[in-house]
Amino acid sequence: MLSNKRLIEEMKQRVFVANLALPESGLVKLTWGNVSEINRGAGVIVIKPSGVPYSKMKVSDMVVTDLNGELLEEGMKPSSDLATHVELYKAFEEINAVVHTHSKNAVMWAQAGREIPAYGTTHADTFYGEIPCTRQLTLEEVSSAYEYETGKVIVETFKEKKIDPLAVPGVLVYGHGPFTWGETPQKAVENSVVLDEVAEMACVTEVVNDAVGSIPQYLLDKHFFRKHGKNAYYGQA
Amino acid sequence: MLSNKRLIEEMKQRVFVANLALPESGLVKLTWGNVSEINRGAGVIVIKPSGVPYSKMKVSDMVVTDLNGELLEEGMKPSSDLATHVELYKAFEEINAVVHTHSKNAVMWAQAGREIPAYGTTHADTFYGEIPCTRQLTLEEVSSAYEYETGKVIVETFKEKKIDPLAVPGVLVYGHGPFTWGETPQKAVENSVVLDEVAEMACVTEVVNDAVGSIPQYLLDKHFFRKHGKNAYYGQA
Amino acid sequence: MLSNKRLIEEMKQRVFVANLALPESGLVKLTWGNVSEINRGAGVIVIKPSGVPYSKMKVSDMVVTDLNGELLEEGMKPSSDLATHVELYKAFEEINAVVHTHSKNAVMWAQAGREIPAYGTTHADTFYGEIPCTRQLTLEEVSSAYEYETGKVIVETFKEKKIDPLAVPGVLVYGHGPFTWGETPQKAVENSVVLDEVAEMACVTEVVNDAVGSIPQYLLDKHFFRKHGKNAYYGQA
Amino acid sequence: MLSNKRLIEEMKQRVFVANLALPESGLVKLTWGNVSEINRGAGVIVIKPSGVPYSKMKVSDMVVTDLNGELLEEGMKPSSDLATHVELYKAFEEINAVVHTHSKNAVMWAQAGREIPAYGTTHADTFYGEIPCTRQLTLEEVSSAYEYETGKVIVETFKEKKIDPLAVPGVLVYGHGPFTWGETPQKAVENSVVLDEVAEMACVTEVVNDAVGSIPQYLLDKHFFRKHGKNAYYGQA
Repeated sequence: MLSNKRLIEEMKQRVFVANLALPESGLVKLTWGNVSEINRGAGVIVIKPSGVPYSKMKVSDMVVTDLNGELLEEGMKPSSDLATHVELYKAFEEINAVVHTHSKNAVMWAQAGREIPAYGTTHADTFYGEIPCTRQLTLEEVSSAYEYETGKVIVETFKEKKIDPLAVPGVLVYGHGPFTWGETPQKAVENSVVLDEVAEMACVTEVVNDAVGSIPQYLLDKHFFRKHGKNAYYGQA
Repeated sequence: MLSNKRLIEEMKQRVFVANLALPESGLVKLTWGNVSEINRGAGVIVIKPSGVPYSKMKVSDMVVTDLNGELLEEGMKPSSDLATHVELYKAFEEINAVVHTHSKNAVMWAQAGREIPAYGTTHADTFYGEIPCTRQLTLEEVSSAYEYETGKVIVETFKEKKIDPLAVPGVLVYGHGPFTWGETPQKAVENSVVLDEVAEMACVTEVVNDAVGSIPQYLLDKHFFRKHGKNAYYGQA
Repeated sequence: MLSNKRLIEEMKQRVFVANLALPESGLVKLTWGNVSEINRGAGVIVIKPSGVPYSKMKVSDMVVTDLNGELLEEGMKPSSDLATHVELYKAFEEINAVVHTHSKNAVMWAQAGREIPAYGTTHADTFYGEIPCTRQLTLEEVSSAYEYETGKVIVETFKEKKIDPLAVPGVLVYGHGPFTWGETPQKAVENSVVLDEVAEMACVTEVVNDAVGSIPQYLLDKHFFRKHGKNAYYGQA
Repeated sequence: MLSNKRLIEEMKQRVFVANLALPESGLVKLTWGNVSEINRGAGVIVIKPSGVPYSKMKVSDMVVTDLNGELLEEGMKPSSDLATHVELYKAFEEINAVVHTHSKNAVMWAQAGREIPAYGTTHADTFYGEIPCTRQLTLEEVSSAYEYETGKVIVETFKEKKIDPLAVPGVLVYGHGPFTWGETPQKAVENSVVLDEVAEMACVTEVVNDAVGSIPQYLLDKHFFRKHGKNAYYGQA
């Protein structure tokens, strides 16, 4: 019980720091964006409170819920996107953190309704193939449990396209913006940084060469597996 | 009388802070831009002085006028755009603050003479539909009371298009740039931040997908009313 | 004699501060860019030394020359663009300061070999009409006294197009970049800031609306003369 | 022996500072990018360790190898791009430092698979002619010694196009990104700054004028030799 309390405090600290990293990285403005972390063993999700300015946010403001998103502590209202996070945690069992932003370049592709092709090794280092864009949500989906349905359509996209969420740790929601995830809140934020960067690069790449194609599969393989999996050799062991 | 004096001091403080927020947010350069606040009950408008560098501006430099823009205190000359602010306050009775900038991305659309379509939820969270662009002012309008006519053409645009200025708290003046407004100077500045952000996103969205269309009405509804009106559920109560 | 010494010290101070403003405004990188000031009565030009890093530059490094660009003091070598500045001072008798940068957006138009149309009031507030681009220099001009010829072709451009250098305080040199000028070093730097800003705006304006035209003459008149000349009413008296 | 130790310490210090300059200049994000320096006489290469965050990197983390890239000291793993650096040092005997980044604008051109034309004097001041882009690596090259082959294809590109690596101190690797080099780590970083800047300028230059051509050879000559070679007259002697 006591150790559970400490675990939650540590999660709050990590989630707080990761949320602050969003405006620091230039990924969000005003009160936009949110980061959460899950601990399935402890049955706990910690997420940013809704609509609180980053400059006033405190560690103790982080909101604690169970694995269905039900509040476990009195306190602030959770991010309105909580239900989306919950759905992602249920479907993608290996991920421990989720990030949502309206970062400019990723939003542009989401608004354009296009997946981001793997045009180079910067993309391949983090995303093993194109970053998918969901279909548009229907009237029924938006009118009922909107944030829950947003999670569902992301999961549907990965299932239909047979994409491994660990190999492609991010998605564009049609007309809306990006979600990314990872093993830790920090890693999930880094994936948001990379997604926005490759989104910008991809757009201008098409301006510089309107006949550009994706990099070959063997180069995608090389760069992704240089950094990921048991044969990775990037970084300090 | 005494309480009126305190009220004006508080307005000056808020208007000063909001004006400084313009260069801090990257929305203006040099001495461009201006923010005002109105208190209809007290019969007072407070506005930035004309052409004073932000780095040297003091709270006491803020200019105090009556509801017709006539000076109530000796001091500096008001922003040359005062007459536009006055017209907006007269026509849009629920707004308490007005902001004018030459923020880059909004100006680009104003120069292009195009309204900004609602291409995504970042737009819908703040602007309930396209952000309109006025018609071009005529020779007569520009040659006579230019700043007054600028206000008039904004009001005309909202009337003709039957747009609620609270639902769409901003506009582009053809060939010139954006005006935004809100319940407070801070809120009006935030609306300028969002307008510039969605202006940039909209432009590149069209580059990424030249056949892109606006988001469906039901998604616009969902996002706007998630944050606005009696059924809003974003933020802390 | 003594007063001349003080005058030169003051010029060095102003030129130093204006040069530092270039990297601070994001207009130059590395050692690029230079600012000079002239005092015709005293027969003196003060200019930045050639190729000195901004972080190490001192007031005393500023170089003093006569009106033909001949060194008046022992010290550092002047900016290699000195001869261009000298020609501009000879031809444009009302200007007291010249700035040269490779600021990104202005360079893009110079490389594209196009004058910048007056697409909006941000442009009109500072530049009374299009910002011209010179013709390309010939092999002979480049091979002989290159920097002198650069000044000559700027002057030629203003003469042939019958542009008043006070009404349009800047130019693009074909394939190279912008020069601006003004009554003071600070004002000349501000004109470089505006030139780069309107260059960026103009480019994207054409992307947003590929059929865009210049603003009407009456709007150009209104905005320019709101800030310039005897009927100006912008700023504090 | 003692003097060799001091020499290596000085190299580590320079390589450390040059690596930190990459995020400071906005050229890299996260742990991307790497700088190395060679001393052929001492038989030593010093390079950034692999995957270490810039904020935690220490001078003593720099990795020391021999001229074939074999570790000379116990310590951290070298940058995974070491083998590319080694090949460049072997083929380009006059260079003493190599830099690799994923800087946005250079990557866009690399992804587009295009060399960067010399559209202006900003380009010509540093790069004597177009900045080449390598051919795509083959499946065999990528699958075997990838980083070594990356170095080989750069060298091949300069040989086939008969480009002097001192006259054009940088290259784009197809689908990947830029490498630059120079006499010192600082100079090589500066060349990365310029490469990214001219990459951005070149892209928008084509947007502003889709029929733009390279500057004439005589202007390229003038600007490059104003700064390089025995007749250079830029900077303080």
